[in-house]
Amino acid sequence: MIIDIHGHYTTAPKALETWRNRQIAGMGNPAERPQVAELQIGDDELRESIETNQLRLMRERGLDLTIFSPRASFMAHHIGDFEVSSTWAAICNELCYRVSQLFPDHFVPAAMLPQSPGVDVATCIPELIKCVEQYGNVAINLNPDPSGGHWTSPPLSDRYWYPIYEKMVEYDIPAMIHVSTSCNACFHTTGAHYLNADTTAFMQCLTSDLFRDFPTLRFVIPHGGGAVPYHWGRFRGLAQEMKKPLLQDHLLNNIFFDTCVYHQPGIDLLTRVIPVDNILFASEMIGAVRGIDPETGHYFDDTKRYVEAAHIDADERYKIYEGNARRVYPRLDAALKSKGH
Amino acid sequence: MIIDIHGHYTTAPKALETWRNRQIAGMGNPAERPQVAELQIGDDELRESIETNQLRLMRERGLDLTIFSPRASFMAHHIGDFEVSSTWAAICNELCYRVSQLFPDHFVPAAMLPQSPGVDVATCIPELIKCVEQYGNVAINLNPDPSGGHWTSPPLSDRYWYPIYEKMVEYDIPAMIHVSTSCNACFHTTGAHYLNADTTAFMQCLTSDLFRDFPTLRFVIPHGGGAVPYHWGRFRGLAQEMKKPLLQDHLLNNIFFDTCVYHQPGIDLLTRVIPVDNILFASEMIGAVRGIDPETGHYFDDTKRYVEAAHIDADERYKIYEGNARRVYPRLDAALKSKGH
Repeated sequence: MIIDIHGHYTTAPKALETWRNRQIAGMGNPAERPQVAELQIGDDELRESIETNQLRLMRERGLDLTIFSPRASFMAHHIGDFEVSSTWAAICNELCYRVSQLFPDHFVPAAMLPQSPGVDVATCIPELIKCVEQYGNVAINLNPDPSGGHWTSPPLSDRYWYPIYEKMVEYDIPAMIHVSTSCNACFHTTGAHYLNADTTAFMQCLTSDLFRDFPTLRFVIPHGGGAVPYHWGRFRGLAQEMKKPLLQDHLLNNIFFDTCVYHQPGIDLLTRVIPVDNILFASEMIGAVRGIDPETGHYFDDTKRYVEAAHIDADERYKIYEGNARRVYPRLDAALKSKGH
Repeated sequence: MIIDIHGHYTTAPKALETWRNRQIAGMGNPAERPQVAELQIGDDELRESIETNQLRLMRERGLDLTIFSPRASFMAHHIGDFEVSSTWAAICNELCYRVSQLFPDHFVPAAMLPQSPGVDVATCIPELIKCVEQYGNVAINLNPDPSGGHWTSPPLSDRYWYPIYEKMVEYDIPAMIHVSTSCNACFHTTGAHYLNADTTAFMQCLTSDLFRDFPTLRFVIPHGGGAVPYHWGRFRGLAQEMKKPLLQDHLLNNIFFDTCVYHQPGIDLLTRVIPVDNILFASEMIGAVRGIDPETGHYFDDTKRYVEAAHIDADERYKIYEGNARRVYPRLDAALKSKGH
């Protein structure tokens, strides 16, 4: 089985974006805010948006299952207050839940949180509980910078985040550390902010003893870990200067990297440098890079091709495709086992 | 000849830091600010600080020449106003100039600029002129984020920066795009902020047409280009989505990456992915990662070992070690030729 642990609902029916635009337009004027009930998307529309997009490509590429969360760039936690984020997160999470119900063999949901800059993260707990207990979510996406590129929240090692971690540990779910749209003109969203956030999150963990407080907490750092594997020697050296344990012991029981790296040399480096137990297959399609690579004739984000061509053996490939995901996402494993997989 | 294009004066005599601390302490009270003349560092002290450190290691490693600029993390443009930065930059640049006079065969200076957040960059021009015309500097370091991790300046493609670019073009000198200390708790200086800035700067160029306005402008992106080479497919794909030319044509006449990547797999990726004409040898020693890699028994920052072991031929190695530096830094080339090299 091939599990893609990083998919977003980037192809939701247009009505979703229209509703969101009305919500934003109505921010200064509660009377103009649209009601949640005004957003009506039928099952047929959901089905079509998936069948003609993600599911079509999954079949073409031979992927079986996607962990599916709301569109990352649309989370936009910097917009509005907690109430705006809360309403928006509930809508987006419900849509992913419905997709998982319509395609139970192919999609398992992961939740976005109703984060809002400067707001106590404990306010996100009710949505998290609902998503896990009622919607069967197997993970969350945690945004380390809900300000959208201004980085006004404390580092992930700060006790500010602990209420979320306590709930994650209780439910035994991992968090993908994933920012949203940048509203800072310096940072292009998918070309700079995403990768910077990956590197930043890793370093926040490296300099701290977060995983001493939470030995079973698990973070997935997407986009191949940002700059981290390419600079693995730098990070090993920095940890050594700080008298931290070897990265293997200090971080790799808790941190995992996905394979959203869109060329062969990148995947080759990732699989050469990072222990195979810490690599999870993912493509983030249909996402930031949707085109066909003129150098290969294949989609940039068809990451399975790179993993197939990497210098790893069958057992290692199994771990990347399935084994590691079952270990890092125990609720996914339990759901699969309950269906006889 | 092996030219290290990325060295900082990280080992300056203690008196420099003491003076700087007094300058900072006196910021609120001009009467307490130390006079420049109070900083006295003799030639013998300078000589010793270099001979026992950078020059010793250059000899051990077989490096001939270093392009030498003030300590990057000490630039700290976010501290104080323009006058504070201006005084500090003048002191630091003079020290590097003196080192280059004491060791003319081994050190060639590059200048830091007296940037200050929110201040017109044209205020940096007098220092730049002095450094090029009187001190023989062959390059500048340009900080894309003088706020120190808050990213409050416009992107490098903004006309805000054009006065500097015009002077760079006039003098035919490149800029290394190099941030300083992060004062944002989210970003570790050398583990996150440096690498993020590299990626950010590259993406700012990619999304713009800056090099159409300045066809001969040259940027060196340090630390192996941050996350860029590892995600080269992503950047190629993003450029394609934006209908930009191929990166080769769009950016690689103007952007160059150094080899400050502290492990073999990183240098192998860099030399596999980036055209050899765009790679410049560098180590940034004695810098962020000063220890010995327990996996190899050699210094992490002994990047010559990685370049030696990379799968490139002698002609390519010559370009990385010397040829490209002479092309990207024409004033260095002229200085070398004037000495018969």
